[in-house]
Amino acid sequence: MQRFKVGVDQLPLPSIQVIKCKAAVAWEAGKELSIEDIEVAPPKAHEVRIQVLYTGVCHTDAYTLSGKDPEGAFPIVLGHEGAGLVESVGEGVTSVKPGDHVVALYTPECKECKFCKSGKTNLCGKIRATQGKGVMPDGTSRFTCKGKPLLHFMGTSTFSQYTVVADISCVAVQQDAPMDRTCLLGCGITTGYGAARVTANVEEGSSVAIFGAGCVGLSVVQGAVVNKAAKIIVVDVNPAKEEWSRKFGATDFVNPTALPQGTTIVDKLIEMTDGGCDYTFDCTGNVGVMRAALEACHKGWGQSIIIGVAAAGQEISTRPFQLVTGRVWKGCAFGGIKGRSQLPGLVSDYLQGSLKVDEFITHRQTLPEINTSFEIMKQGDCIRAVVSMKE
Amino acid sequence: MQRFKVGVDQLPLPSIQVIKCKAAVAWEAGKELSIEDIEVAPPKAHEVRIQVLYTGVCHTDAYTLSGKDPEGAFPIVLGHEGAGLVESVGEGVTSVKPGDHVVALYTPECKECKFCKSGKTNLCGKIRATQGKGVMPDGTSRFTCKGKPLLHFMGTSTFSQYTVVADISCVAVQQDAPMDRTCLLGCGITTGYGAARVTANVEEGSSVAIFGAGCVGLSVVQGAVVNKAAKIIVVDVNPAKEEWSRKFGATDFVNPTALPQGTTIVDKLIEMTDGGCDYTFDCTGNVGVMRAALEACHKGWGQSIIIGVAAAGQEISTRPFQLVTGRVWKGCAFGGIKGRSQLPGLVSDYLQGSLKVDEFITHRQTLPEINTSFEIMKQGDCIRAVVSMKE
Repeated sequence: MQRFKVGVDQLPLPSIQVIKCKAAVAWEAGKELSIEDIEVAPPKAHEVRIQVLYTGVCHTDAYTLSGKDPEGAFPIVLGHEGAGLVESVGEGVTSVKPGDHVVALYTPECKECKFCKSGKTNLCGKIRATQGKGVMPDGTSRFTCKGKPLLHFMGTSTFSQYTVVADISCVAVQQDAPMDRTCLLGCGITTGYGAARVTANVEEGSSVAIFGAGCVGLSVVQGAVVNKAAKIIVVDVNPAKEEWSRKFGATDFVNPTALPQGTTIVDKLIEMTDGGCDYTFDCTGNVGVMRAALEACHKGWGQSIIIGVAAAGQEISTRPFQLVTGRVWKGCAFGGIKGRSQLPGLVSDYLQGSLKVDEFITHRQTLPEINTSFEIMKQGDCIRAVVSMKE
Repeated sequence: MQRFKVGVDQLPLPSIQVIKCKAAVAWEAGKELSIEDIEVAPPKAHEVRIQVLYTGVCHTDAYTLSGKDPEGAFPIVLGHEGAGLVESVGEGVTSVKPGDHVVALYTPECKECKFCKSGKTNLCGKIRATQGKGVMPDGTSRFTCKGKPLLHFMGTSTFSQYTVVADISCVAVQQDAPMDRTCLLGCGITTGYGAARVTANVEEGSSVAIFGAGCVGLSVVQGAVVNKAAKIIVVDVNPAKEEWSRKFGATDFVNPTALPQGTTIVDKLIEMTDGGCDYTFDCTGNVGVMRAALEACHKGWGQSIIIGVAAAGQEISTRPFQLVTGRVWKGCAFGGIKGRSQLPGLVSDYLQGSLKVDEFITHRQTLPEINTSFEIMKQGDCIRAVVSMKE
């Protein structure tokens, strides 16, 4: 494992070596990941090679691996919640340097495209097309295994000990933040926290309902707490999530399967909030839940934010009357957070204690155990498994 | 027809007389209106009796008359776009006085309820329940005909020479504004203009698409012009609407039925706006059009506003991905305009020439001819028919 090291007054020279390392390869849909020796090519211009130290395992990885994602292609190196060290950089990279502690960003931020310049969205458009195809911006892959190229995933591919990403797809963060925690800021925590604080910008004193108490949902709770919501209701079918929810600051918990006959979750939430919630968040990906979340909003101003990713082909529906009477239906990806501009702030929030991260880590594995992480993710008692990339 | 007259230093005494006058009565669904002699009781506390001078005829009246409105009940006095003179007021009325020129408001504004105080919506809740049932706030009707009570409609019932409304359901406007024009500010024009200027608050330089070039849609065009939108595209299946659209300030017109084979209206609008519209407005009530309007919005920030009223039981649908990638789906009633606070401003805009009203009036009838107004409304060349309440 070569690491390219430079002194402070030396210019980083382009790394020319191919790195051989271990990675969890998804050869085909519906099969377990396979730990393989792969080759990782040096970063080209405006690319960064990262030594991944820790990665989270997220439902989106499992979704693509399952084969249900119509855009999923194989073989591929999955993983998108990663933190590590910059090993080397390609020509023209100025935003990070070797040795920097970075978090990988599946939502890049170029600061130059129409989207980034709009000031209205975090959905950078610069490398969208190639990222969606599983290749680097020049249309090729940096990964090979047994002579075959492997696809990149979400511009990050953190299930490898080394990965190559576009320079706009990673952000340097404070070195005193432990990377086995900051890796989780690469997806779930930031998604929920940002949805509450940036996308919805929850108002002080308001009522909030969160459907689904996983990593994302509990992070919405955290954002609502920081923004001083008065009522924070978590809705989850797993009664064990009540304790979790209250630990993160929820004021109420409702198990929709335990309501009296004939009372829907919408009825219940409207009753609990004197007319409906000011904000609701879907963190389930279930389109029926998304509808309930919208319809549990207060007439006149309630906003429902879709965060969960629905299965292919699924659609949301409601009566247009729900919107004509003032409810707003919106959504966000990565919580509306601009990774390079705003993620360092979240790391500060974490270090200062206003953003819980450690509490999410219920399981730890090493790279060879990564398939276990996928299995336990399906269990109710797992919030997040962090995989150390050590062998 | 008694009018209660008072000097400036006399207190208005409660009017005690029942007024006999002509009204267009809807005896049952699907039948023509019938011109009848009716009795209009005096206004009770916090009620206002209005001599209606002019009324518009709107699709909502036709919808209820057709019997398709599941909440429609009969016999009823329809009509909700009306202007006239205050004839008398009940106890406790301080906002208007006899002789005032008023516009009837089907969206009332009490300034006291949770909704009015929120600062976030124009959907006053104070008399919602009784208004929906077709009665005055005390649960009774002020109309009788042939010994039978008649229901009120939308809190206004302007198809009568005299009507009684809650004091929060009318607003006094400048006396120099002609009432055969201001009546139209009671619904369609305000709905469209407000949707563009209040609900969407269209940004300078933005791109806007409006589906449906009736009174509402053309008023959205007007609002977009005042807010300095750069591109204002009207979409309508009637080619005759192109001239209308351009007259009101549209920069482009698209007839979706005249597109090349295989090109959808969504494709066309995305192409015309380099990625999608910043704002779209549905003024058709067609749920398929509502979906197209959402999907023609720009990723990241495009907002689609539903104004049209869909038929009972119809639902809107889309893939949640449309929202997760930053589009916003919302709606409004009466354009988000608070009638008592904001309608006088629209009258000023009209008198100062920045809001076109006269141009909408394509047909004029008298009360006995009101059924003709319903017929011609279905024709493409009618934007608005104004009915004079003279016999």
